Amino acid sequence: MEKTIEWIKTNNFGYSKMIDQTQLPYIYKKISINSSKDMYSAIKSMIVRGAPAIGIAGAHGVILGAIESLNCDNFVENIKKIASFINSSRPTAVNLVWAIKEQLKVLEKNKNEDRKTIIDLLIENAIRLENDDIEINKKIGEYGSAIIPKGATILTHCNAGSLATVGWGTALGVVRSAFEKDKTIKVFADETRPRGQGARLTTYELTKDNINTTLITDGMGAYFMRKKMIDVVVVGADRISLNGDCANKIGTYMVAIAAKYHNIPFYVAAPKSTIDPAIKSGDEIVIELRDEKEVTTINDKPICVSNVNIINPSFDVTPGALITGIITEYGIIKPNEIHKLFTK
Amino acid sequence: MEKTIEWIKTNNFGYSKMIDQTQLPYIYKKISINSSKDMYSAIKSMIVRGAPAIGIAGAHGVILGAIESLNCDNFVENIKKIASFINSSRPTAVNLVWAIKEQLKVLEKNKNEDRKTIIDLLIENAIRLENDDIEINKKIGEYGSAIIPKGATILTHCNAGSLATVGWGTALGVVRSAFEKDKTIKVFADETRPRGQGARLTTYELTKDNINTTLITDGMGAYFMRKKMIDVVVVGADRISLNGDCANKIGTYMVAIAAKYHNIPFYVAAPKSTIDPAIKSGDEIVIELRDEKEVTTINDKPICVSNVNIINPSFDVTPGALITGIITEYGIIKPNEIHKLFTK
Repeated sequence: MEKTIEWIKTNNFGYSKMIDQTQLPYIYKKISINSSKDMYSAIKSMIVRGAPAIGIAGAHGVILGAIESLNCDNFVENIKKIASFINSSRPTAVNLVWAIKEQLKVLEKNKNEDRKTIIDLLIENAIRLENDDIEINKKIGEYGSAIIPKGATILTHCNAGSLATVGWGTALGVVRSAFEKDKTIKVFADETRPRGQGARLTTYELTKDNINTTLITDGMGAYFMRKKMIDVVVVGADRISLNGDCANKIGTYMVAIAAKYHNIPFYVAAPKSTIDPAIKSGDEIVIELRDEKEVTTINDKPICVSNVNIINPSFDVTPGALITGIITEYGIIKPNEIHKLFTK
Repeated sequence: MEKTIEWIKTNNFGYSKMIDQTQLPYIYKKISINSSKDMYSAIKSMIVRGAPAIGIAGAHGVILGAIESLNCDNFVENIKKIASFINSSRPTAVNLVWAIKEQLKVLEKNKNEDRKTIIDLLIENAIRLENDDIEINKKIGEYGSAIIPKGATILTHCNAGSLATVGWGTALGVVRSAFEKDKTIKVFADETRPRGQGARLTTYELTKDNINTTLITDGMGAYFMRKKMIDVVVVGADRISLNGDCANKIGTYMVAIAAKYHNIPFYVAAPKSTIDPAIKSGDEIVIELRDEKEVTTINDKPICVSNVNIINPSFDVTPGALITGIITEYGIIKPNEIHKLFTK
């Protein structure tokens, strides 16, 4: 399976290679990231996006930080500083925090090894995280496909696909696993303004896989629910609190409310690494506010007057009460039981 | 008050003059419509849009039809045929049907007058409808402003402003009347994909009037409701059934469901002419399906892959159960009592 983001090993440690998602679906190109600064920018500008993929980007950022620290007096401390810098690129997806921590654990455990060995161990660990991500998504897909009725139409919001992960996808992993068993399923993809990940990325991924896909604007979901044209909603997540509240791309919450109103099951598909055991409720999740140009400009042209106010929250929080189940690599879990994954 | 659409009298009957709303807010220009065919196209292509404004366009279309029929054998029958043609330009807004009927009543009542007199009477009637529209909107504004709390933030969807009417507006008429009394009110305007009437027209109108306006994407409403940043929702309507169900721009229904979930009052502002006494329930309202390019293309560039399916319903129906009140020129009426306007 082609990886959306992967570490390429060379004689000189190597570099991070990723699909540039800002140009899709018009231009498909891969870019190489060779410095921690460039990794920070790649995450912030959404060249790489999607919580699990951002996690891997963070892990790669730590490797790049280690390579840059090779000749520093305080090797370990310097890596930690760069890790913290990478960590500050985007605030909402917890997978970034999680994957960086996984790397810092390797660093801590091996801090007395020689520097080149440490870097090799960080690379090894990052590649393990990459492969784990695909494995986990396959498990999520397998568990999730059980809740997709035969011939169902699945509504999804944003892109929780192979592009949001290393491969296969979370919400779209569920779609892919369901499609392997039943070629008659259909997907309705929300456009997902302001960045249009649904229009640009989800339609790109799914049509490439020959999955019957219909693009709708973000205001249309409830219309099709009322017409009984949506059987189930499946979305991804960027951070899940211990009570099962799920932060995901802005607009998810409106879809969840509409699904509840129409008694349509609403599922979140996400790996355990998206759950933040440090956060009890969704109210504590920091919501990133992004540049107003994302709202005011499309295809480099304005879509509104220039003197209007803009607030551009990139995520919203769907309370657990609206969520039928969270599809994880450990099975489908009720939101109010998600905390048990940490007490087992 | 400048009229969005008006009949301009000349020695030779005259013509319809309207703001071209497809170019706003970038280019402000007025165009003249001199034939019934051009009027059909102006309505269909949304040069003129908004239920009450479309009504006036229909009334003007009948005049143009009468002028074109001057030398026909069957003057009256020919006008009726052209009226029916104009009527078929867009299916959902009932004001078009209503205003054309108002003209056909004048035609029927005066069919024995000479042709030029009939045309003069149609012109007189159209200008009366124009002026009535502004009067009615002022009354709607006056009644509606009573439900806007001091310093409130009002969420609106699409454009039910002066541009959707002859002047003042319905939903934005409520905003304008409230603003006359309280300069501290604020408006959140939904972008309203696919045609962006909120982004293009509502922000244009309101910032011109110095009303504090924030543009948000269609998926953001519930986020701000949860943050207690929205006090009340006011939208327009295109057709209201006798049980109080309201058809309005696609996306309205999702906002109404979200408002209900957050216990935020949700009002529809519309003149009596938007109520269709022939239709008992919203399920009977015909929803226009428009060109897929409205969804796939923004600013003349694609926003998605080319091989995705599109369904583009232009309106949805909000059931009366989600509507706090319908603000009319006769006062604020509960949806389940709206039928009484026809039995008084």
